[in-house]
Amino acid sequence: MAGRNFLFVPGPTNVPDRVQRAMVVAMEDHRSSKFPELTLAALSELRKVFKTERGTPMIFPSSGTGCWEAALTNCLNPGDKVLAARFGQFTHLWIDMVQRLGFEAEILDSDWGTGAPVDRYLASLEADPKHRIKAVLVCHNETATGVTSDVAGVRKALDAARHPALLFVDAVSSLASIDFRMDEWGVDVCVSGSQKGFMLPAGLGLTCASEKALAASRTARQPRCYFDYADMTKANATGYFPYTPNLPLLYGLRESLRMLLDDEGLENVFARHRYLAAGVRAAVLEGWKLPLCAQAPEWWSDTVSAIVVPEGINGAHVIDVAFRRYNLALGAGLSKVAGRVFRIGHLGDLNELMVLGALAGAEMAMLDVGVRIEPGSGVAAAQRYWRAHDPVPHQRVAHREVVYASHSTGSTEGVKG
Amino acid sequence: MAGRNFLFVPGPTNVPDRVQRAMVVAMEDHRSSKFPELTLAALSELRKVFKTERGTPMIFPSSGTGCWEAALTNCLNPGDKVLAARFGQFTHLWIDMVQRLGFEAEILDSDWGTGAPVDRYLASLEADPKHRIKAVLVCHNETATGVTSDVAGVRKALDAARHPALLFVDAVSSLASIDFRMDEWGVDVCVSGSQKGFMLPAGLGLTCASEKALAASRTARQPRCYFDYADMTKANATGYFPYTPNLPLLYGLRESLRMLLDDEGLENVFARHRYLAAGVRAAVLEGWKLPLCAQAPEWWSDTVSAIVVPEGINGAHVIDVAFRRYNLALGAGLSKVAGRVFRIGHLGDLNELMVLGALAGAEMAMLDVGVRIEPGSGVAAAQRYWRAHDPVPHQRVAHREVVYASHSTGSTEGVKG
Amino acid sequence: MAGRNFLFVPGPTNVPDRVQRAMVVAMEDHRSSKFPELTLAALSELRKVFKTERGTPMIFPSSGTGCWEAALTNCLNPGDKVLAARFGQFTHLWIDMVQRLGFEAEILDSDWGTGAPVDRYLASLEADPKHRIKAVLVCHNETATGVTSDVAGVRKALDAARHPALLFVDAVSSLASIDFRMDEWGVDVCVSGSQKGFMLPAGLGLTCASEKALAASRTARQPRCYFDYADMTKANATGYFPYTPNLPLLYGLRESLRMLLDDEGLENVFARHRYLAAGVRAAVLEGWKLPLCAQAPEWWSDTVSAIVVPEGINGAHVIDVAFRRYNLALGAGLSKVAGRVFRIGHLGDLNELMVLGALAGAEMAMLDVGVRIEPGSGVAAAQRYWRAHDPVPHQRVAHREVVYASHSTGSTEGVKG
Amino acid sequence: MAGRNFLFVPGPTNVPDRVQRAMVVAMEDHRSSKFPELTLAALSELRKVFKTERGTPMIFPSSGTGCWEAALTNCLNPGDKVLAARFGQFTHLWIDMVQRLGFEAEILDSDWGTGAPVDRYLASLEADPKHRIKAVLVCHNETATGVTSDVAGVRKALDAARHPALLFVDAVSSLASIDFRMDEWGVDVCVSGSQKGFMLPAGLGLTCASEKALAASRTARQPRCYFDYADMTKANATGYFPYTPNLPLLYGLRESLRMLLDDEGLENVFARHRYLAAGVRAAVLEGWKLPLCAQAPEWWSDTVSAIVVPEGINGAHVIDVAFRRYNLALGAGLSKVAGRVFRIGHLGDLNELMVLGALAGAEMAMLDVGVRIEPGSGVAAAQRYWRAHDPVPHQRVAHREVVYASHSTGSTEGVKG
Repeated sequence: MAGRNFLFVPGPTNVPDRVQRAMVVAMEDHRSSKFPELTLAALSELRKVFKTERGTPMIFPSSGTGCWEAALTNCLNPGDKVLAARFGQFTHLWIDMVQRLGFEAEILDSDWGTGAPVDRYLASLEADPKHRIKAVLVCHNETATGVTSDVAGVRKALDAARHPALLFVDAVSSLASIDFRMDEWGVDVCVSGSQKGFMLPAGLGLTCASEKALAASRTARQPRCYFDYADMTKANATGYFPYTPNLPLLYGLRESLRMLLDDEGLENVFARHRYLAAGVRAAVLEGWKLPLCAQAPEWWSDTVSAIVVPEGINGAHVIDVAFRRYNLALGAGLSKVAGRVFRIGHLGDLNELMVLGALAGAEMAMLDVGVRIEPGSGVAAAQRYWRAHDPVPHQRVAHREVVYASHSTGSTEGVKG
Repeated sequence: MAGRNFLFVPGPTNVPDRVQRAMVVAMEDHRSSKFPELTLAALSELRKVFKTERGTPMIFPSSGTGCWEAALTNCLNPGDKVLAARFGQFTHLWIDMVQRLGFEAEILDSDWGTGAPVDRYLASLEADPKHRIKAVLVCHNETATGVTSDVAGVRKALDAARHPALLFVDAVSSLASIDFRMDEWGVDVCVSGSQKGFMLPAGLGLTCASEKALAASRTARQPRCYFDYADMTKANATGYFPYTPNLPLLYGLRESLRMLLDDEGLENVFARHRYLAAGVRAAVLEGWKLPLCAQAPEWWSDTVSAIVVPEGINGAHVIDVAFRRYNLALGAGLSKVAGRVFRIGHLGDLNELMVLGALAGAEMAMLDVGVRIEPGSGVAAAQRYWRAHDPVPHQRVAHREVVYASHSTGSTEGVKG
Repeated sequence: MAGRNFLFVPGPTNVPDRVQRAMVVAMEDHRSSKFPELTLAALSELRKVFKTERGTPMIFPSSGTGCWEAALTNCLNPGDKVLAARFGQFTHLWIDMVQRLGFEAEILDSDWGTGAPVDRYLASLEADPKHRIKAVLVCHNETATGVTSDVAGVRKALDAARHPALLFVDAVSSLASIDFRMDEWGVDVCVSGSQKGFMLPAGLGLTCASEKALAASRTARQPRCYFDYADMTKANATGYFPYTPNLPLLYGLRESLRMLLDDEGLENVFARHRYLAAGVRAAVLEGWKLPLCAQAPEWWSDTVSAIVVPEGINGAHVIDVAFRRYNLALGAGLSKVAGRVFRIGHLGDLNELMVLGALAGAEMAMLDVGVRIEPGSGVAAAQRYWRAHDPVPHQRVAHREVVYASHSTGSTEGVKG
Repeated sequence: MAGRNFLFVPGPTNVPDRVQRAMVVAMEDHRSSKFPELTLAALSELRKVFKTERGTPMIFPSSGTGCWEAALTNCLNPGDKVLAARFGQFTHLWIDMVQRLGFEAEILDSDWGTGAPVDRYLASLEADPKHRIKAVLVCHNETATGVTSDVAGVRKALDAARHPALLFVDAVSSLASIDFRMDEWGVDVCVSGSQKGFMLPAGLGLTCASEKALAASRTARQPRCYFDYADMTKANATGYFPYTPNLPLLYGLRESLRMLLDDEGLENVFARHRYLAAGVRAAVLEGWKLPLCAQAPEWWSDTVSAIVVPEGINGAHVIDVAFRRYNLALGAGLSKVAGRVFRIGHLGDLNELMVLGALAGAEMAMLDVGVRIEPGSGVAAAQRYWRAHDPVPHQRVAHREVVYASHSTGSTEGVKG
């Protein structure tokens, strides 16, 4: 098929050209005297993304899932109890891992489309005076339903209950896209991966452990080796890794960090995600007049929107037509919401026109399978929102004096074709 | 700025990923015993694009302009007369070159927005019984106004007048996008470049000479060396070049030819360009209700549309806002139509969603500078056209049995995040 | 520093240009209906590399180390006993992992420089009539000492002792470079990675499990989740992965497999490695007159040679000068042999001239730190060997008739510069 | 064939990885308001390479040959006379172009293997009191014979004769590798290309015109258009080009200029070329005991060496075996020296080990076709030279404290494989 694929699943996200270039590297000796420069700079810059000064970032050769496992096996002892809410496929899967690794889970089941139930977390913590709960799990952004949760609220619940449990946060689809604050929120382990806000291929598990988490890991007896924090931090201290790292991803990460921290700026990145997400929501709610899976504005995610299709329509058909007829990749509804929603991932290296292409494509696919929406209605709603809300107007100044004045144009075109 | 630039100038066009990959090559000895494989295959495949069996394709290390010069200096003698119509910036420039190289030009000036005036060509040829006109120049697609001309008609005029002049055609922005037929239309030199329908960076002048043109070149006395056909064809015969060629472009050309000829198929490429262009015209004429510069449907170009902006609006402002605010590159109005039009290039590696992003961006830019159009109107008109006119429905079959059925989705998502 | 780094550590190895190109891919939806093509073809082709028809290959997003862990945690129960020989850093590390994961290890300590002691394996197995040993670990190629072991011999020992233990083989630095035969040798789990013979960056754990190993995994109770065979094989069956895979590596693997299996052919790959290794050994033993760490020819590795430096010389100095002065990366001596050896990795995408550059560089570095060798002696010895032992003379036929005949050359040079 | 090709023709040269990366760019609008940044910076930096403050650099979309033509057609009038020496294939070809374009050439034929005969230039100039000679042509580095000429000497001859002729210099295979001084030497047009010292693919003609040359071009009447200086300088003044430029090459040039000027430094680049060339000459003269085509040390080229093969040996056979058996590309003998020499290009992005690989390969190829040299003798001679003449010892300091000390090595290797 001619032309580019429009990739609007919530990860992997588009790799920017400059990151793509940065990954075209010759292999090199990862034990050379020069290598530590790369490692140490990456770890240092990662701290800024996690917003931590006291935490220890680590880069595992794994997907984000591996860092879920690392958090559990490094900080807990066999049979330990954890508290976790379940309201989507990824909250479900982390709890499933908890149980398979032999830990006990106290599960707070909530409606899919709602976020972390802070009150119920508080109630469970208060009901645990003996502190049998060793860790509290929160998913910052549930990718399956497009729901962002109040991590700071869960921290407040822990504090209110004077409960010493560790706070583990899944920030796979929020870190580097939605504001996350490791130190301020008192997060003990944050888990993420390279293929979402970092705009890289999958393959790096990016995680960060607080001093409290590292202290726990020193005595925890759950068997582990590949994901051992001690091996990693010991090698990292001198700029090395306990195993051969993926060099293209490390060089890509260096470039991605430059883009996020130095060029666009992390707060501008968050603002852009909010701005693009608001345009998508305008398209869904005002243009198409369809509901979001996220049940209230407090839970709207700035990285992914799950759109509920009308009765009688299968969301999977929308996705299938979008992919095969229009070269547009949308996210499927998973498990409990399979068929009932389709998802638009709007995170990473995106701008208005890319999202407009996707919205226009989703419109065509919906129309093709029988959803009654007005053609162009979502596009027009997003256009209206974006025209009225430029997040960086100061960056729109001319690169230099405008050269497109009507008379000069002929001369820049010059004398040849 | 985050996200991709939307490149909708009529060249250079987007380089497909697989062509981009093909160009990442180590340098090699261009005089090795292995090298001719590459050259000979490329020249052989180029014949199919020119639709010629008897013509001789050549690849010059130059822009397309260089091949204009090659046609004139190889086939003409000092002071020779050529006949050419002028109705846009590129027809103007070729005539300017004719005069600067010391030839005489009989110029048929026509309205910008019309195409080659076949009747007037015929009249001029009939008025030249002594055959002082040695070459007739036609621009197959005038990039500045979005006008496609009737090359076959000019051939018929030559035949009707029994005139022996050579027929030179500028197909820079049509070859490999709009049907062109070297042998059937009796074209003597066709001139093109790599950066339009071939989906490559600029840098290769792609041209083809008929037997009659090569015969003329053997006796023509206009001074020339760099662009000499004899040097090129002699070296090409054994698979070499008279100078060091640009290897990335040659490898890119090999891949581009595979895409055009083997994978999509040339007729499907033409059909896709017609289909995408028709959607753009639906947006302009039915959605935005703005006129095209091309004055009649017979001249509508399938590779570029020049849109006339309303009185009081400067087309250059639309382009400027599109570029700086929305990261959309549109083509400027040149020379006589500077400020009065903006151009959308719709050629090369494009699909519906890419064009919809551009149309949506052009809408926003027009609205921002005060053009009164309905937001989303162009998008909706193009959507309607494309939903009703799928050019390759047989290619939309599922890659394999649809896997997005609602129940299976959960399982493909698997047990991990 | 100008020019290319000469990478002669035993992994990561040089990525061939065509694999490099194949990895420059846009991200895509790894749950699309099209994606399984890639997965299923890769798994099918991997079977040929493992030389198995009944085994099940798996691709984990990890380094090779992760597959060590996967073998142990999927097939064993808590407290199970394994039998393993230790004669180098990597045999040491796998045993260390065994112990850290809570299994019991019966360790056969051997001299560093020798290989797997088949007789002692046999003795231990015969001394275990109650079959407390559940798995036997063998390192096919000990990267730290340049020693290849007799895996088939260990299988014979198991058979002779009629012992049902599983046979786990570390083939990280041998697979796709030195002949390995999963089915013929009755291997139950083979562990490897992408960054050696597969000529890719690190990041893919490539492993293969026999039917017997998979059967064991169905009942094994060691906690595991990330590396669970059942999750992986279930998702793989339909062409998917339980987590987001690294797409560049998967596309790179596809290209690497084409090179290994289709273009060069696996047996030719092995022959080339033998041929290049023999040249290196000629340089070391005949040219430089230095001993190898590998104590006998039966243990010489065709992928890595560890060279023992003379008394009074620190191998680390050779490596340091080679890297900083000559841009040559050599492998360090590890642990017990630190300082006593330096290593030349000679695996992956290599040819004679690349190795000669490395040999010449090692000579200069040795001379610079005081090793008394004859300049050029290693190079000359390798040259002699290779000139006398072309492994693929039939592939040296001219690409076409030789064009370098003295008179034709001028004409191919053509008329321009 | 496995492994890298060793490219030792005198152009195209190896493209460094970072330049390769820099060329992987998406197409963009070359008439945008942002584009001039790229053009203006490149032109400004090029001045430093030409060592000119008053000259005007230009970048033509052509090979270097095109800039030969540009020099002649822009600065001369029909029938003008030029003075030029001929002592190799490329001096021959430029003179051939002079004649084909209709100019008159006074030719100073000299032995192939000698350089520009300064005395004879002087004599001819003094014998031209009426100044019929309008331009003097000198080849700074004759690629065919490996001869560097004394351009400053020719300038002195012009001055001594008080002759106003323009001085045109072919610096195709010297610029950015061997010291060239436009202003100091009073050069009027310098001609070069991208594929030699600039370490880029072919495709950019890089040239520079003095004020005197530009003044001449304003009145010169030779027909020209594609290569017209006025069109180019007019468009360049605002940062544009008269035709669509090759964007990958322009971005590659930017990176190449950074490497040459900012990172290595131009004088260090020259020193490295001298140092590597001296090693090659040690191999040829002391190791192999073969003569160079260049007849005296004053003419030895630091970018290419032509080696004379013994009687009875065909140099083309050496080249053929080197290419097909050892994947080594050597330069052929051209025209008068066809069969009598083979050439080693040693310019661009090279280091000692790359050259040693090539020398070792040339040794094997020579031995295979019957040249009686001592195996390893050239390698040993070059090693000796380079070990004694490190050009940048201050750059060899450890990147950081040496980590290869014998005891620390084990720990950097870490606990995993």
